Amino acid sequence: MIETIQSPADLKRIPPSRLKDLAREVRDILINTVASNGGHLAANLGVVELTLALHYVFQLPVDKIIWDVGHQSYVHKILTGRQEQISTLRQYQGLSGFPKSEESVYDSFNTGHSSTSISAAVGFALARDAKGEKNSVIAVVGDGALTGGMAFEALNHAGHLALDVTVVLNDNAMSISPNVGAMSGYLSRLRMDPAYFRHKEEVEQAFLRIPGIGQNLLRVAGKLKDVVKYLVVPGILFEELGFTYLGPIDGHNLEDLLMVFQKARFIKGPVMIHVMTEKGKGYLPAVNNPDQFHGIGPFDISTGRPFKSGAKTYTQVFGEFMVRKAEEEKDLVGITAAMTGGTGLDQFADEYPTRFFDVGICEQHAVTMAAAMASGGLKPVVAIYSTFLQRAFDQIVHDVCLQNLPVVFAIDRAGLVGEDGPTHHGVFDLSYLRQIPNMTIMAPANEDELNDMLNSALQYEAPTAVRYPRGSGEGVEVKKTPDFIPPGQAVLLREGDQVLLLAVGRMVKTALDTALSLQETGIRAAVINARFVKPLDVDLITSWAIRCGRVVSLEDNVLIGGFGDAVLESLSNISHQPEVLNMGIPDQFVEHGDLDILWHDLQLTPGGVRRQIIERWPELKKNRMIGRI
Amino acid sequence: MIETIQSPADLKRIPPSRLKDLAREVRDILINTVASNGGHLAANLGVVELTLALHYVFQLPVDKIIWDVGHQSYVHKILTGRQEQISTLRQYQGLSGFPKSEESVYDSFNTGHSSTSISAAVGFALARDAKGEKNSVIAVVGDGALTGGMAFEALNHAGHLALDVTVVLNDNAMSISPNVGAMSGYLSRLRMDPAYFRHKEEVEQAFLRIPGIGQNLLRVAGKLKDVVKYLVVPGILFEELGFTYLGPIDGHNLEDLLMVFQKARFIKGPVMIHVMTEKGKGYLPAVNNPDQFHGIGPFDISTGRPFKSGAKTYTQVFGEFMVRKAEEEKDLVGITAAMTGGTGLDQFADEYPTRFFDVGICEQHAVTMAAAMASGGLKPVVAIYSTFLQRAFDQIVHDVCLQNLPVVFAIDRAGLVGEDGPTHHGVFDLSYLRQIPNMTIMAPANEDELNDMLNSALQYEAPTAVRYPRGSGEGVEVKKTPDFIPPGQAVLLREGDQVLLLAVGRMVKTALDTALSLQETGIRAAVINARFVKPLDVDLITSWAIRCGRVVSLEDNVLIGGFGDAVLESLSNISHQPEVLNMGIPDQFVEHGDLDILWHDLQLTPGGVRRQIIERWPELKKNRMIGRI
Repeated sequence: MIETIQSPADLKRIPPSRLKDLAREVRDILINTVASNGGHLAANLGVVELTLALHYVFQLPVDKIIWDVGHQSYVHKILTGRQEQISTLRQYQGLSGFPKSEESVYDSFNTGHSSTSISAAVGFALARDAKGEKNSVIAVVGDGALTGGMAFEALNHAGHLALDVTVVLNDNAMSISPNVGAMSGYLSRLRMDPAYFRHKEEVEQAFLRIPGIGQNLLRVAGKLKDVVKYLVVPGILFEELGFTYLGPIDGHNLEDLLMVFQKARFIKGPVMIHVMTEKGKGYLPAVNNPDQFHGIGPFDISTGRPFKSGAKTYTQVFGEFMVRKAEEEKDLVGITAAMTGGTGLDQFADEYPTRFFDVGICEQHAVTMAAAMASGGLKPVVAIYSTFLQRAFDQIVHDVCLQNLPVVFAIDRAGLVGEDGPTHHGVFDLSYLRQIPNMTIMAPANEDELNDMLNSALQYEAPTAVRYPRGSGEGVEVKKTPDFIPPGQAVLLREGDQVLLLAVGRMVKTALDTALSLQETGIRAAVINARFVKPLDVDLITSWAIRCGRVVSLEDNVLIGGFGDAVLESLSNISHQPEVLNMGIPDQFVEHGDLDILWHDLQLTPGGVRRQIIERWPELKKNRMIGRI
Repeated sequence: MIETIQSPADLKRIPPSRLKDLAREVRDILINTVASNGGHLAANLGVVELTLALHYVFQLPVDKIIWDVGHQSYVHKILTGRQEQISTLRQYQGLSGFPKSEESVYDSFNTGHSSTSISAAVGFALARDAKGEKNSVIAVVGDGALTGGMAFEALNHAGHLALDVTVVLNDNAMSISPNVGAMSGYLSRLRMDPAYFRHKEEVEQAFLRIPGIGQNLLRVAGKLKDVVKYLVVPGILFEELGFTYLGPIDGHNLEDLLMVFQKARFIKGPVMIHVMTEKGKGYLPAVNNPDQFHGIGPFDISTGRPFKSGAKTYTQVFGEFMVRKAEEEKDLVGITAAMTGGTGLDQFADEYPTRFFDVGICEQHAVTMAAAMASGGLKPVVAIYSTFLQRAFDQIVHDVCLQNLPVVFAIDRAGLVGEDGPTHHGVFDLSYLRQIPNMTIMAPANEDELNDMLNSALQYEAPTAVRYPRGSGEGVEVKKTPDFIPPGQAVLLREGDQVLLLAVGRMVKTALDTALSLQETGIRAAVINARFVKPLDVDLITSWAIRCGRVVSLEDNVLIGGFGDAVLESLSNISHQPEVLNMGIPDQFVEHGDLDILWHDLQLTPGGVRRQIIERWPELKKNRMIGRI
């Protein structure tokens, strides 16, 4: 049946009674696709019926659906003419794992980070009204995303404007880790309510029919309407913000979903539809372990076990550091924004539950709370992915750095992340952090150095960021007792006198490989592992830069404002400046795809770096004795 | 009486009956101080009784008060040993206009931006509990700040943790402009409630005493407690989030305030105290015009009229542009985050109310909403101060630039702002914006160029930022019909062959003055107004840089990642690189004070720039014919 659906119009030709079978077919595609390509399985399995019902009732692309976070949009992609390409999902030049307006007219707004969909819906609805158009605008937002303050800002504004906009609250009682926050408690009280899908007016009518009570309430309270509302309508919190609340609805019951979406189309003003779904629905391994199946690499369908390499990841090394360090450092606390497993804090959370804080998808709150904790004498470590920490830029500036408070940022997923693409690459952190006074920034060349850096960061007594990439380390052994690295100390890894390769983080390995490859053509490259992006080891760098006369900076961050600029700044003060070639992410967004392909495209493999060096300084190729020594 | 109070301990010796007189004395000090120094008058006049009562009941510095936004902390400063210095308020090396932990042990946490106080309170409370200490932690937050999503994130977390923390909601029905948002409507419904300060338990008791009703309710609803709660307790929204709600209280009635604060001290778990205050209380001009008296320069006490210069401000030029442009450009809409007057959008708001959007203190929501509006065919102009736009960094990256949507950012208060100090200087914007792909960044040298740039920005059809300083322009005439400036076009203002002064924004004037001063000693400086920080006019800059051999970049932004780095990047590609000296804000936070003093300290006056040039290139002083032509 699924093959016949090339667009939402085809879907509408299928009788409602057969949608259940269609849902089964969609689930098969989802499981097979993610098992082979990796991706976000649990969330997509949870919204199969929800997505079918939305497309059945609404008319895309005239109506707009904005998928919050966006990783639950695979079903939507399958139903909107991209079924044949679904095997290319998350692969280089294939379908994106997120909504992408460049990819399809059915994707009205790109998403990737949490809690933006209601704001986008408000913007679309206001544009529609300004232009006198008629269409529905629907934001589909998870209960986890609802903890993000930005979602509340938008709810508050939509309620104020009494705007025609529909918010579908996809409540699976999880964000990525199990959900936190008082709002979550509130939602679970709503879920406990035995009366699914009672509409306010219906309830009011029913209530008035009970003899006697209505009269009494009226006499005592003098405001029957409010009494009834408070007494029996769930969702009062949303009603107080100006929304008509419908729900909770069983998100896997197609009949209920179709009925409520039909109803919602004709309600004036903002509507909140509370839909309960199960993450991983229809695939037992994902139901049993939704955290693991949130974002997953390729896996074996029969067992649900991922095919993965054995090498230890940076994430694991961080997690182990936290557990080990917590024993000796009693003031150490760990903070995550709904990413307990992703950041590697799960074991720490288990062993030190009172010193572990999952604040929900609230990076802003996490950072300011950490600042106050530091001010109150604790040693907070804030573990947030590079791209998500962008949310807390202002809080890092004002609440941490302006007060020079000892907060340690453990920044995972720095640099390119691969298949998740431009919304998830962590390629801005060196730039947005480096500009802030009082901030120290490190990037380890391998997992052992990560351990040393985390250990050192906790001793600096100042704002410190340690940023490290997604995935496996270099396979080196992690020392039992980590070293202390004094702030700003770089290390010379290799001598040379023709060109200096100056690298940070994962690019140190690339620099070493490049130097070896240059050696084969007789070019003598020195290599420095800068370790610090701020402060730079100006003395070591300057002396070797002068010795070599040619400097190449290497980073997996945007060139603008990053490590390369730091090198340019430090060398601009010397007379007879060495020539500098900055290599890193150019001034463009990098697409999704396999890391090896992306590095190759960006000319940041050892071969690409070597080629660029020889292009810039062809005299090196002639292999004359041109060193300055 | 006020002279006897050198610390909160002195305050506690005054009998409660005399606090009213003390309040009057404090108001006199406030009015006199702000009339001479400028500052935030209306907000401070509104919290006189509130602050007196807090210090009377709580024990600072053991107990912690965190003042959200912080500009309402003058009374607190007067009561905590800083009365004698109050005449130095906001002056160079005098008292800060915001809480500052370096200034006093009574200032537990620095604030300046909105909506951070509850997060900080959660952090302090967690640190206290971890260390087994006992003290109260109080966040004082305005109803405007409560619209900021971060405040909601923290409420949600505090409710979840059932943490002992007190939130004083200072509700003056204003943020800076009159308040917006559904929450604001909710608060006003609470204010309408005739029963001030009824405590939940009291009400329950009272209710149960009504014969018959309790029984009936019990039989029908089966959950008396909730019925009672919903029926009569205001603040249900906060109660649902886990807070005990007390209020609303008259914030100018000292008896009520003292009683409720005393009570709150002994309630377990999070408490929300809803206090109603009047902005400007006790000074009629401020009551009548709180927006004008929000942040104000020195003024005449008898009339309330500010002593201000007649020159037109950049803000005014922006406001006039919007009104004029709106007539011809029907899709133009203006967006502010609670700063209608401050951004100059008041006239636009009056004339085009349906095309004007004040979203509350919600920079994140504002930016994403604007992105969707642009996607929906409108032409949004987002007017947010440089320092506050930091809040929306992630939204600018992902929702605007990644989709390459034509949103225009009108960024006021860029560069140093003077008396408001480090939380308000707009010195990071060039760096945090420049690193983002697809972003165009302009800075006008004068008010007429601002007009041209705004006009041009709307035609680029891409993300564009125009950033301009606080205060008066250069006094040039603003053309009736603005010019179109092609993206990336700089302009040579003065020829020279010994040193090139390359400036943006307000530093162009400094560059021209410096060139004149250099000419007096026979040094021939060329001057370029770069106009664009991104894209740079590489051709013009390179050719003059090579001609002069020495380049000075001038900006009122941090050196790291800003305009100077852009110049270094563009010149690093040429062989025989000219020498570059970057001038701007060094890697440190700049204190508050008069702008002239700050510029002088930073060596960014024409004299300072000239001195730095001659220090770097002493050969220029010898006045030999050392130009390259």
